[in-house]
Amino acid sequence: MADEAAVRQQAEVVRRLKQDKAEPDEIAKEVAKLLEMKAHLGGDEGKHKFVLKTPKGTRDYGPKQMAIRERVFSAIIACFKRHGAEVIDTPVFELKETLTGKYGEDSKLIYDLKDQGGELLSLRYDLTVPFARYLAMNKITNIKRYHIAKVYRRDNPAMTRGRYREFYQCDFDIAGQFDPMIPDAECLKIVQEILSDLQLGDFLIKVNDRRILDGMFAVCGVPDSKFRTICSSVDKLDKMPWEEVRNEMVGEKGLSPEAADRIGEYVQLHGGMDLIEQLLQDPKLSQNKLVKEGLGDMKLLFEYLTLFGITGKISFDLSLARGLDYYTGVIYEAVLLQQNDHGEESVSVGSVAGGGRYDGLVGMFDPKGRKVPCVGISIGIERIFSILEQRVEASEEKIRTTETQVLVASAQKKLLEERLKLISELWDAGIKAEVLYKKNPKLLNQLQYCEDTGIPLVAIVGEQELKDGVVKLRVVATGEEVNIRRESLVEEIRRRTNQL
Amino acid sequence: MADEAAVRQQAEVVRRLKQDKAEPDEIAKEVAKLLEMKAHLGGDEGKHKFVLKTPKGTRDYGPKQMAIRERVFSAIIACFKRHGAEVIDTPVFELKETLTGKYGEDSKLIYDLKDQGGELLSLRYDLTVPFARYLAMNKITNIKRYHIAKVYRRDNPAMTRGRYREFYQCDFDIAGQFDPMIPDAECLKIVQEILSDLQLGDFLIKVNDRRILDGMFAVCGVPDSKFRTICSSVDKLDKMPWEEVRNEMVGEKGLSPEAADRIGEYVQLHGGMDLIEQLLQDPKLSQNKLVKEGLGDMKLLFEYLTLFGITGKISFDLSLARGLDYYTGVIYEAVLLQQNDHGEESVSVGSVAGGGRYDGLVGMFDPKGRKVPCVGISIGIERIFSILEQRVEASEEKIRTTETQVLVASAQKKLLEERLKLISELWDAGIKAEVLYKKNPKLLNQLQYCEDTGIPLVAIVGEQELKDGVVKLRVVATGEEVNIRRESLVEEIRRRTNQL
Repeated sequence: MADEAAVRQQAEVVRRLKQDKAEPDEIAKEVAKLLEMKAHLGGDEGKHKFVLKTPKGTRDYGPKQMAIRERVFSAIIACFKRHGAEVIDTPVFELKETLTGKYGEDSKLIYDLKDQGGELLSLRYDLTVPFARYLAMNKITNIKRYHIAKVYRRDNPAMTRGRYREFYQCDFDIAGQFDPMIPDAECLKIVQEILSDLQLGDFLIKVNDRRILDGMFAVCGVPDSKFRTICSSVDKLDKMPWEEVRNEMVGEKGLSPEAADRIGEYVQLHGGMDLIEQLLQDPKLSQNKLVKEGLGDMKLLFEYLTLFGITGKISFDLSLARGLDYYTGVIYEAVLLQQNDHGEESVSVGSVAGGGRYDGLVGMFDPKGRKVPCVGISIGIERIFSILEQRVEASEEKIRTTETQVLVASAQKKLLEERLKLISELWDAGIKAEVLYKKNPKLLNQLQYCEDTGIPLVAIVGEQELKDGVVKLRVVATGEEVNIRRESLVEEIRRRTNQL
Repeated sequence: MADEAAVRQQAEVVRRLKQDKAEPDEIAKEVAKLLEMKAHLGGDEGKHKFVLKTPKGTRDYGPKQMAIRERVFSAIIACFKRHGAEVIDTPVFELKETLTGKYGEDSKLIYDLKDQGGELLSLRYDLTVPFARYLAMNKITNIKRYHIAKVYRRDNPAMTRGRYREFYQCDFDIAGQFDPMIPDAECLKIVQEILSDLQLGDFLIKVNDRRILDGMFAVCGVPDSKFRTICSSVDKLDKMPWEEVRNEMVGEKGLSPEAADRIGEYVQLHGGMDLIEQLLQDPKLSQNKLVKEGLGDMKLLFEYLTLFGITGKISFDLSLARGLDYYTGVIYEAVLLQQNDHGEESVSVGSVAGGGRYDGLVGMFDPKGRKVPCVGISIGIERIFSILEQRVEASEEKIRTTETQVLVASAQKKLLEERLKLISELWDAGIKAEVLYKKNPKLLNQLQYCEDTGIPLVAIVGEQELKDGVVKLRVVATGEEVNIRRESLVEEIRRRTNQL
């Protein structure tokens, strides 16, 4: 009834508009009223009408996006396999308690399932905690594995920049008791190989160590109880200026201004072997046991990275913190760089990989607390997709979304049966072949389909060809046609599509 | 304190047992008591202790299982691509209302997410409804796509038989307005190709048509309002004898005994073209418009299947119903067959694929109700995994879980740096290589690692080799060793691992 009244009122407005021959500004006013009414009506309808969308922060991948995604995945998987990794998979949800107490302040972003009777479940937040649960549950003390799967975070999505609530992570981890920093160095080598392979432009891998951070906090006068929360604040330095981070530390988190200022001096430092040596000489820092351990390992790491020839891509950066609670040693994060407007300086345009050492996480799951030292990396694939998608769109590169080698076509009517017989032979011989699902398609439409989808060859059957025991093979790109004996057709298609 | 008391009591029992030199039955009694106490202690602890498991009805896939899984997936994907399919992906959850009213009685098995503010979400129950939502949302009227992803059902798991709450589906669907039964026939060809490829033994694809079922129900005197629920009962015929299904129809669902008996006569029928012809002559059935349409299409389908040469694997079976609400035309289900104990008769050991035509589903999502006819198949992969896993275990076949071509090893101490330099060269050249993460590993341990993991080659660096500018390449299987000039090493590894 409310709707009817509104519609009548709308009609009335329209009639008055017509009769009055109203002035432009009057018309504008009435149009505005009409639009408002329409919006209002739409709003009312909306309550009953079906909303056709994917959930907030998620998206579908269409065939073109999938083609790009599969390219990226195959580059990443090739690298993981080059480094000898096995692959595992775990369920998309875990017992809620498995995830509890692993993510610090970010735990509020975990998706819980509704209690429908039975166990309380949550969607996985990353692949690292399920990996640690898997190791403890199966008493595995030694494995190098990768895992590529979706994870879930109830974060504020920023989809144009590739930040989603459902997104892929590509994780590579090395678990086991080994000599220091050898697996850690391999993880950084892997990040360097993948980011180079994908040709995303210049990048930088920042490294730091939780022990150096914690020791630095102690030296600066941060009370033990505030280490983790101050660490979260430092982690924001890539998104906020120091002044704001300092305000958060002092204002919200109750740190003394003096301590904050001391932290401020250190977190501006970044460099390579030179900075490590400098800090090893720092009178205050070098007194701290944690810092000494951390710097010692950092030095070893840089020695190995020198052997790998990749120190040019690595920066020891005291402002790198990473928010997750479970890291215990080296941490790292890879960012893509872009020259700023003046073309002078490279600025970070966002993180594409991260990771670190977490020697205590498996022990949290083991009934006897047995530790399994772990180090790993996680490639954040969505931002990489965004960049490549934009690049493909800008270049107008035509991406094929199928691999079909040949379309089985007919030049005359009433040849559906012959087309089906031929395509069945081709499928059974392993040829990738399609046929239009029409009884009597026009030849032109069949050729057009090949143009549209990039199919390189057409196998044409006609009355004459059938009599002669041949098939006419047409090359779409050139229009060249040649009769091929039916028994040689498979071989000819293979030969011609291998050349392409 | 309770625990302490229990432990003391237990110690007391053990002492008495030792002192008394008790009789066997006394010992048995005491052991039973001890076990009970232990269970009790475990139970009490359990309340506070962490439960280390995956959620009910789910499992991890370790490297060996993943190796089998990837073999199966690649066979299936190869078939889908052979038939010209594109690939898409959709989110693991949908708006709850997207799934509402699509699954009939099975809707109670849908996993809902907890309301944490924002939209109400559910985990996808299959890949078909998200596909229809994707088509309507993007106004796509013509696509052939596959989608391989996990779906979720709060069913009673039977994990030894491959029934899980989280499981993969491999779907192939053809959407669009085409001439009748051509895409439907291709779907059946695909099922036949995949099941043959995977060498799972004998199989049978049962086909029926929702219109034949509905028309048959009408002819038998089932009221319109009971079509769907009677259809669900018929669907249970592969798990229950007819008598029980009849009891359900009459007792629970209030169908007249006469109607049930008439259904009973039809649902025992199965055959091929002969049965189609016979039913087209059936005086009652042939009067019904739906049945006539269904039988006409079934005849056409069998003509196309004859051209594909696969009618030997197909059975037109009037007892096939399939529970889902959305089917509108042809339906099918593939079952694996096993000879029974007498070796006389083949019996079904479970469904491995299913599908059908659903011409109305996309229209349920389109704001204007525009229909997009669809037909598709879904391969139920978990049961196939179960079978192949058991087969691999029985055969003691050794499955490699990595693809590593060469281990970079050293014969003496203090060569870590040289090993890291060499492996870095190999990685950069695209060679799959590993190194033990030890400063000074024993050569024997390095060779043993290759034996254990199936790495075929070892590249050994030693003082003398370094001086001579060579690397000693050892073939693990034969023990053969040969010095290779460093600059030829990559080529030599490639050559030798291509041969393997």
